[in-house]
Amino acid sequence: MARARSEERRAEILRAALEVIAERGYRGASLASVAERVGLTQQGLLHYFPTKEALLVAVLDERDQWDTGGAGLSTAAWRMDLLASLVEYNAMRPGIVQTFSALLGESVTDEHPAKEFFTQRYALVREGMAAALRMEYGERLPGGLTPEQAAPLLVAVLDGLQYQWLLDPGSVDMPGAFRDFLTLLRPE
Amino acid sequence: MARARSEERRAEILRAALEVIAERGYRGASLASVAERVGLTQQGLLHYFPTKEALLVAVLDERDQWDTGGAGLSTAAWRMDLLASLVEYNAMRPGIVQTFSALLGESVTDEHPAKEFFTQRYALVREGMAAALRMEYGERLPGGLTPEQAAPLLVAVLDGLQYQWLLDPGSVDMPGAFRDFLTLLRPE
Repeated sequence: MARARSEERRAEILRAALEVIAERGYRGASLASVAERVGLTQQGLLHYFPTKEALLVAVLDERDQWDTGGAGLSTAAWRMDLLASLVEYNAMRPGIVQTFSALLGESVTDEHPAKEFFTQRYALVREGMAAALRMEYGERLPGGLTPEQAAPLLVAVLDGLQYQWLLDPGSVDMPGAFRDFLTLLRPE
Repeated sequence: MARARSEERRAEILRAALEVIAERGYRGASLASVAERVGLTQQGLLHYFPTKEALLVAVLDERDQWDTGGAGLSTAAWRMDLLASLVEYNAMRPGIVQTFSALLGESVTDEHPAKEFFTQRYALVREGMAAALRMEYGERLPGGLTPEQAAPLLVAVLDGLQYQWLLDPGSVDMPGAFRDFLTLLRPE
């Protein structure tokens, strides 16, 4: 009972942290503002997450767990139609996309606590995407590209479209543009 | 003479601002730290740029002026081989790419002073890229895509590859990956 309550509170804190990061970025976010949003004292929040960094990593991990149905990135079997659905889904949750995009942007500044997380994540994701592309489209993609050459492009399109869409949702059809990209990758 | 000196000082301030933003992001950067780097008092800096926002917009404008040879984005005639060269060039100036990527990331947070700049810039760039694609590859690209459909993908690949490359330059060959993408776009 106490355990269930604590899990619930933890999830509530992660949601509040997502919101605050989306609004102010990680560097602009404070533990105090997250605590306030869930009606805890800062001391109370530290019981769940001892540092701001710990909270950040938990937010990032949690998102990947959700998106892979709890499988985690390393074992997730990606499929192109599932990816297209994930992009459709993301277009309905700008807050999550905003948090992720703001953090990715910050992570390239010096000594950012999310830098290691993103570096490892991208290595895993590129590997997973290459495997998925090979499984679906075989060894040679259009233009003679290998799955390993196409994987970083696939990841770049996913990330890059998010920025254009967040800045101007009325002008950029993110899910449609992603489907266009898959058309380019599909062998004739 | 005084005018030349002032222009020179202005350029020096913009370079320092680029460095400070690359290291700390725009929200983490202060006018004081930029002033210190060029040996000015904060009051002296305010003579050139009255606000932090004014300095930011000057930095962003200056970069686009450099990259388009002074032509500005709206009139720049893009060509795919020039774009590939620009990506090669960017791979030799990680500081500039880091500043731009950090700012793009921050710009999607609430009420960021660069949001309007990036929104307008991307609309212009997509338009310019669509015109360039039409000029070089004609009305139909692989997969039946129009130049207008391919343009946001081209921009997304440029931005997305920068993040992957900044996080892990040893694993991501940014210029090579961009050339791979151009191979996908080129009609048979």
